[in-house]
Amino acid sequence: MYPGLAARAASLDAADGLAPLRDLFALNEGSVYLDGNSLGALPRHVPERLRDVMTRQWGELGIRSWTEGGWWTAPERIGDRIAPLVGAGPGQIVVGDSTSVNVFKAVVAAVRLAGQDRTAGQDRTDGQDRTAAEGRTEVLVDATTFPTDGYIARSAARMTGRRIVPLAPAEMPAALGPRTAAVLVNHVDFRTGRLHDLPGITAAAHAAGALAVWDLCHSAGALPVGLDAHGVDLAVGCTYKYLNGGPGSPAFLYVAERHQAGFDSPLPGWNAHADPFAMAAGFEAADGAVRGRVGTPDILSMLALDAALDVWADVRMADVRAKSLALTDFFLECVAAYAPPGRVSSLTPAAHAERGSQIALRCAEAPAVMDGLIARGVVGDLRGPDVLRFGFTPLYVGFADAERAARVLGEVLAAVPGRVPPGRR
Amino acid sequence: MYPGLAARAASLDAADGLAPLRDLFALNEGSVYLDGNSLGALPRHVPERLRDVMTRQWGELGIRSWTEGGWWTAPERIGDRIAPLVGAGPGQIVVGDSTSVNVFKAVVAAVRLAGQDRTAGQDRTDGQDRTAAEGRTEVLVDATTFPTDGYIARSAARMTGRRIVPLAPAEMPAALGPRTAAVLVNHVDFRTGRLHDLPGITAAAHAAGALAVWDLCHSAGALPVGLDAHGVDLAVGCTYKYLNGGPGSPAFLYVAERHQAGFDSPLPGWNAHADPFAMAAGFEAADGAVRGRVGTPDILSMLALDAALDVWADVRMADVRAKSLALTDFFLECVAAYAPPGRVSSLTPAAHAERGSQIALRCAEAPAVMDGLIARGVVGDLRGPDVLRFGFTPLYVGFADAERAARVLGEVLAAVPGRVPPGRR
Repeated sequence: MYPGLAARAASLDAADGLAPLRDLFALNEGSVYLDGNSLGALPRHVPERLRDVMTRQWGELGIRSWTEGGWWTAPERIGDRIAPLVGAGPGQIVVGDSTSVNVFKAVVAAVRLAGQDRTAGQDRTDGQDRTAAEGRTEVLVDATTFPTDGYIARSAARMTGRRIVPLAPAEMPAALGPRTAAVLVNHVDFRTGRLHDLPGITAAAHAAGALAVWDLCHSAGALPVGLDAHGVDLAVGCTYKYLNGGPGSPAFLYVAERHQAGFDSPLPGWNAHADPFAMAAGFEAADGAVRGRVGTPDILSMLALDAALDVWADVRMADVRAKSLALTDFFLECVAAYAPPGRVSSLTPAAHAERGSQIALRCAEAPAVMDGLIARGVVGDLRGPDVLRFGFTPLYVGFADAERAARVLGEVLAAVPGRVPPGRR
Repeated sequence: MYPGLAARAASLDAADGLAPLRDLFALNEGSVYLDGNSLGALPRHVPERLRDVMTRQWGELGIRSWTEGGWWTAPERIGDRIAPLVGAGPGQIVVGDSTSVNVFKAVVAAVRLAGQDRTAGQDRTDGQDRTAAEGRTEVLVDATTFPTDGYIARSAARMTGRRIVPLAPAEMPAALGPRTAAVLVNHVDFRTGRLHDLPGITAAAHAAGALAVWDLCHSAGALPVGLDAHGVDLAVGCTYKYLNGGPGSPAFLYVAERHQAGFDSPLPGWNAHADPFAMAAGFEAADGAVRGRVGTPDILSMLALDAALDVWADVRMADVRAKSLALTDFFLECVAAYAPPGRVSSLTPAAHAERGSQIALRCAEAPAVMDGLIARGVVGDLRGPDVLRFGFTPLYVGFADAERAARVLGEVLAAVPGRVPPGRR
């Protein structure tokens, strides 16, 4: 142990205004949880709240809860609770479905909006969406993205007569042009932790007459996003990472207010109808972000997320960001001090403007090292073949955790041979 | 009260082999719950099971539960638990997403399969799905269906270059032909409770070279379906009605084994990939029904459903069906005895072969009558403008419930004027 680092950690924790929030979460004492970017920790009060949802709202009130208990409007109500965390005004976010399903809605809707801009709504008829001969035929897709976005974007392009162009986000501004319908980019790369330039790429897309769709899975709840301020058109995000909604909790969809009237969903389920309980044969889209809803909301998961969001009541995202950067800076400093030279190298940009809330270390022996870390109570995760991934969630991770994680990493690296013996290749 | 009917109810209940199952559910004593076709009742053991999922699996084990706790394979594992309830062999059902999203997957996949049958898989490339000039251009859609099916089928047709043809199910056999790609039918009509001819319409579709897609929302858990026996191609269903999975619990998708290799999902999320954790840039579809998965499964809702399915352990669907028919017959008999003449008429077919597990009564004063029923502890629901809907769920509804519901209906009808006064029109 470097006593200097441990002492620094203690004084940083003592000065941390967010430190008291840690008590809101159920964490295993004795271990350091650095996997909140995969599965956020359990807020302690959630089980009791969900017990009430089950026994009283479902068991006693039953169907009355759809109206009296606020079940029916949960998607937009909870969306409005997420909105300030991602810099969105009210009425633009609905919660529901998986991230993948929301990527499909967003990319199809973006392509149609890009078409509507030029042809005054002729896209709304049955039959094929307009095709390659008609202009904006390309969707630029972050080639480094979490793969589901690419798979789903390809399907969305196929079904609307467009094609996808995989590119690194940094290459997008030069590739944008009159053939671009939309760009789809991850705000923070799930593997490296690189934060992409949301304002710049969005502005470049707009300058080319295209729409910008952002995937906020690794930034919502981790750093300021500024959806409204930067003029983002559509966005999707996950609630089970930095928003602690529970395993596989429902995702969210942001539709900027100016696009809502033209938002033409590929999944126009009855929940998106202007008058769902009329049960009319013809579809008439609801006004507002509600148009992004599809089927009956999944109430147990939805209300667990609703409860989990209570921890944000008095939290400023600027404070979260400041702590996140301080934590990751300090972790990198500790790794430099504790790790044997040459064994790990950071894939995460050093520049604050390019860093999300995780540190990814490349390590030739990553699988064995992560096993060793977890065995010693430091929980990160592995992204094959050679990446050690450590997520820093400022609401419940402290500086002593960062110091301990780096120190244990040094010990594990010392115990795991740096070269794979021939017999184990 | 007709003592004869009450006595008959008591003796029918005493002879009912399913009667002991009622104790497995949390029901409000003092009321009669006839809305299980909207929201199934809470199985008593579910809250405790979900508490364990939250506090131990999520709170203590955390990400380890994705593997050790069986979270990752829950969609197909729970699908295999539903399978025997709808007459399906294992490996053909996955749970997840809403019914609407599954209708989209099923209709798009059916249209593509109908195309593949004739052109040896040339449909799999990027670009437009094949268009009107190429043959099977029509999707016949049950015009009486729950509206979301129609809305979603229209979108699926639009995005694959087909068109929908709304028809009553009885008209479908005559309308099927070389232009038909698929039919989409509700097994039981949500409004009238009419049971459609699944074997006959499926066989007619096949004879015309088309595929049959069935929506089982109002039949799964209510009566034998026989998916495999009748050669159904694709099916979707709901788990929060007769399967008691909880409000908005995940839906399911059935893909007959013979179609799985050709199942070409419009929502190919990372959960449908052959090797999801490779996080590869290219999509390669998994084998089997797993191909119908999309994004990360919603674990809290999924495992509440898993627990809820325990009540089916020793239940034979033939017994459920026999009791359901006996209950609805008896209810109709009691209504005939208790209701003032001419005030209500049944929309539900009298023939057993055409009846689901609900009774729908047309009543000019339906809104006021349903309010009166609920105020007196008989919980059905209203389907506007003039339908009183009563769902009979054989696991927890008994004959005394049916007699009481009809008796209270008679009292309410006597109290609600039979003609709307001019001032209230």
